[in-house]
Amino acid sequence: MIYLDNAATSFPKPIKVHDEISRCLKNYAANPGQAWYDIALKTAEKIMETRQMICKLFNASGCSDIVFTSNATEALNIGIKGILKRGDHVISTVIEHNSVLRPLNYLNKKGVQVTLLSVNKYGYISIRDLKKEIRKNTKAFIINHASNVLGTVQNINEIGSIAKKSGIIFIVDASQSAGFIPIDVMKDNIDILAFSGHKALFGPQGTGCIFIKNGIDVDYFKHGDTNISPGSMGHPNVSPDKFECGTMNTPGIVGLCEGLKFIEQADINNIKKHQESLMEYLIRELKRLSYIKIYGTNSYENRCPIVSINIDNIDSSSAAYLLNLKDIAVSAGYHSSALIHGILGTCNKGTIRISPGYFNGYEDVESLIDAIKNIYENK
Amino acid sequence: MIYLDNAATSFPKPIKVHDEISRCLKNYAANPGQAWYDIALKTAEKIMETRQMICKLFNASGCSDIVFTSNATEALNIGIKGILKRGDHVISTVIEHNSVLRPLNYLNKKGVQVTLLSVNKYGYISIRDLKKEIRKNTKAFIINHASNVLGTVQNINEIGSIAKKSGIIFIVDASQSAGFIPIDVMKDNIDILAFSGHKALFGPQGTGCIFIKNGIDVDYFKHGDTNISPGSMGHPNVSPDKFECGTMNTPGIVGLCEGLKFIEQADINNIKKHQESLMEYLIRELKRLSYIKIYGTNSYENRCPIVSINIDNIDSSSAAYLLNLKDIAVSAGYHSSALIHGILGTCNKGTIRISPGYFNGYEDVESLIDAIKNIYENK
Repeated sequence: MIYLDNAATSFPKPIKVHDEISRCLKNYAANPGQAWYDIALKTAEKIMETRQMICKLFNASGCSDIVFTSNATEALNIGIKGILKRGDHVISTVIEHNSVLRPLNYLNKKGVQVTLLSVNKYGYISIRDLKKEIRKNTKAFIINHASNVLGTVQNINEIGSIAKKSGIIFIVDASQSAGFIPIDVMKDNIDILAFSGHKALFGPQGTGCIFIKNGIDVDYFKHGDTNISPGSMGHPNVSPDKFECGTMNTPGIVGLCEGLKFIEQADINNIKKHQESLMEYLIRELKRLSYIKIYGTNSYENRCPIVSINIDNIDSSSAAYLLNLKDIAVSAGYHSSALIHGILGTCNKGTIRISPGYFNGYEDVESLIDAIKNIYENK
Repeated sequence: MIYLDNAATSFPKPIKVHDEISRCLKNYAANPGQAWYDIALKTAEKIMETRQMICKLFNASGCSDIVFTSNATEALNIGIKGILKRGDHVISTVIEHNSVLRPLNYLNKKGVQVTLLSVNKYGYISIRDLKKEIRKNTKAFIINHASNVLGTVQNINEIGSIAKKSGIIFIVDASQSAGFIPIDVMKDNIDILAFSGHKALFGPQGTGCIFIKNGIDVDYFKHGDTNISPGSMGHPNVSPDKFECGTMNTPGIVGLCEGLKFIEQADINNIKKHQESLMEYLIRELKRLSYIKIYGTNSYENRCPIVSINIDNIDSSSAAYLLNLKDIAVSAGYHSSALIHGILGTCNKGTIRISPGYFNGYEDVESLIDAIKNIYENK
């Protein structure tokens, strides 16, 4: 199988990710906290090591700012619902994933004012529009770093600097970019960074994370068991325990730790370079085919490795189905993004999304192009 | 190592649990939903198979009533916060875990009236008290099926029948009992059943579940990406998608599936019988030691395999530390239960909790007893 759906989840994972999950399950999958025995201490140590690796990757200052979640959606729910209250105003964009749009839609009904910036046909917001929309009660910006439909990367450094100047909380959804594009929460003035563990960070599904800058007041989300103050009825107000309730996904987190080590060893810039060259090849070959419509920008630079296309007169789902018959895995449809299809003109058909990963090679792109040609010619 | 902390998480897991997680990670850890390729369909199939296994174990009528969560705490947060609104009254107990007590404490501050039934020194609530506390606005009972501190099993069948007669929603926390004591949501009139996947169900950490009976109106908890209506801003109001947001813990759920199959093959009654006989032996041996205080009931029948003790003049944490030096893993402290220690008289010291699992044998209990004797004699 040629897997080209890495924007959904990266596959395969580095071998060390499997190996450590397996080692953990067999040897030390205990619950850390409230336990004084070796394997529980080992688990606690591995979880701390993962926090440290995340701090290092994103230049976060302290491990207590790193909160593990079950996925990016949970991270975004914690961040968004924990910051915005009735009467607040928030600026976000139409290119967000449903994990941002739906919490905002829900909060809007509860009295939060929501402005969704439009994007141009390449998927970029206008910084001028962003500045114009700031109100006295604008509490937060929520910006998708890289679109999961178009791969478009917003200029979070510039947006972060506007947020800082205006005293606005800057929330970044880095689900697609974390592990692929270097992010520096200090330099980019990011207050809250939410991301998946199982995409470009190479962890297993079931892992996500939210960085909450020390001093940013985020309301409680879940209440329950925590490693601190187990004898008290009151849920602790100290991060990460405030947000990490109940038994943690130990094997998942140790897998994520190996994913982070893999990135460190391979170097994030090399990872990016390899996938950019794949993208360059893919886009060049797609552009040769007159019956292919490429959405968003045609550039392979400054984008996440995601291309959305349609084949003339072939429904995106049918195309994905036919590609699967040729053992090629891509995603098709709306990609959990409710609003961007209005801009792209794909409300009724969605797109075929091709998202190569680090483990893909040129020959995979070649096979995909051949398959597309074959499908079109035999339609 | 002799692992006797199965009430925290079961360890080891059946070999097939590791094997399937490994197979999934290597071969088919895709995201189900919005994808038409083979490994995504395989993932969807495995997740459905797990729902079916859970339905079968608890006699639930439909797979859409089964919602996967990251742990029992999340399941309880969904159930408790989704049911109780300002002005409602709820009856629960002092023997609950913090994953029930803390959400209730939070809701109490938001205008939910909370009655916590006391328990006797064996850990049982009084059914008469329960009936007496019912008010016109009593919306729900929340009952811990088996205590994670004492192993005490409440009579959920009797409580369920009272709930049904009174039109009260019956929420059961079965974190300790699920997979160990047969539970029938129909016969026991359970409306909401929350449980861990990683304890007696033998799944990995990172898995939990909530059964929500069809027709029970539970409010939204998280908002985001779902497999249905990805092109809409509105979060679906249909279970399980209403509560299953974002990427699921695929490897975790397939591991849980194998845990459920293991229970089916071994037979839940045989599992119970084996652990009951271990408990009989453990309690008998502990009772011989004059310097051991056993909390709760001395009976090995009708209890989950959990015994809380203290050793005269030795702090519970120190005892656990010393046991670890002898390669024995037990838990010590408050076991995330804020209120039961007031009843047990252990507010300042907690307890040593011994919780054997299916993979323990008599020799493990023997080693524990020898170690305790040795620690006491050398103190």
